[in-house]
Amino acid sequence: MTTPVSMPRRGIILFAHGSRDPLWRRPMESVAERVRVADPATPVRCAYLELTEPDLPTTAAELAALGVTEVTIVPMFLGAGRHVREDLPALVADLGRAHPGTRWLLQPPVGENPRLLDLLAELAQGR
Amino acid sequence: MTTPVSMPRRGIILFAHGSRDPLWRRPMESVAERVRVADPATPVRCAYLELTEPDLPTTAAELAALGVTEVTIVPMFLGAGRHVREDLPALVADLGRAHPGTRWLLQPPVGENPRLLDLLAELAQGR
Repeated sequence: MTTPVSMPRRGIILFAHGSRDPLWRRPMESVAERVRVADPATPVRCAYLELTEPDLPTTAAELAALGVTEVTIVPMFLGAGRHVREDLPALVADLGRAHPGTRWLLQPPVGENPRLLDLLAELAQGR
Repeated sequence: MTTPVSMPRRGIILFAHGSRDPLWRRPMESVAERVRVADPATPVRCAYLELTEPDLPTTAAELAALGVTEVTIVPMFLGAGRHVREDLPALVADLGRAHPGTRWLLQPPVGENPRLLDLLAELAQGR
């Protein structure tokens, strides 16, 4: 008896700024690994705005080619400047045109999440 | 009966990258406000590496002038590249020379904290 290979329905892209420094991306990869452990059936990828590869269009095409029909894009930014407020929505609109068979869902940047802000305040107090 | 004004012994600096975009700093200020609410006796300030004011030396001088004898510096960086691994320790060493009466304690960047990475993984999964 063989187990049927089911096509993933949902994917996740952790989208971060990028850096010339190869160590910079480690926390992003560490978060991706945690998501994989918690939910092995959901493909999760990191993608970067600049300086680090892969970029968002490449990563999105890879997930679309897997047959994923819905992708959540998580902006891994503490401070939300123009990159997140303007560049990223434009990139996501491009993805919708390039891959009309997949829904691209843009989350708010992590730096706007109250639970994250609460935890940062705890860490700042050494708690 | 008057309440004696006690000199703060300990301070906190939230140190972030900075941006040309004035909205970028909001999450940092929001974390500072949470710390103030939780611990009104401890002075807390935001400081920035570039593009946003105030910078770290200015903020450090302000806390030292308050008579603070120990300052925790919290690097508000998800990805830790050269800014955090090299530029920041050099800046903190300068503070030690400029203000020998104050201890300057550099925390690891928030992006290395396992609780933060766990929470980011939960947020990425929409939990």
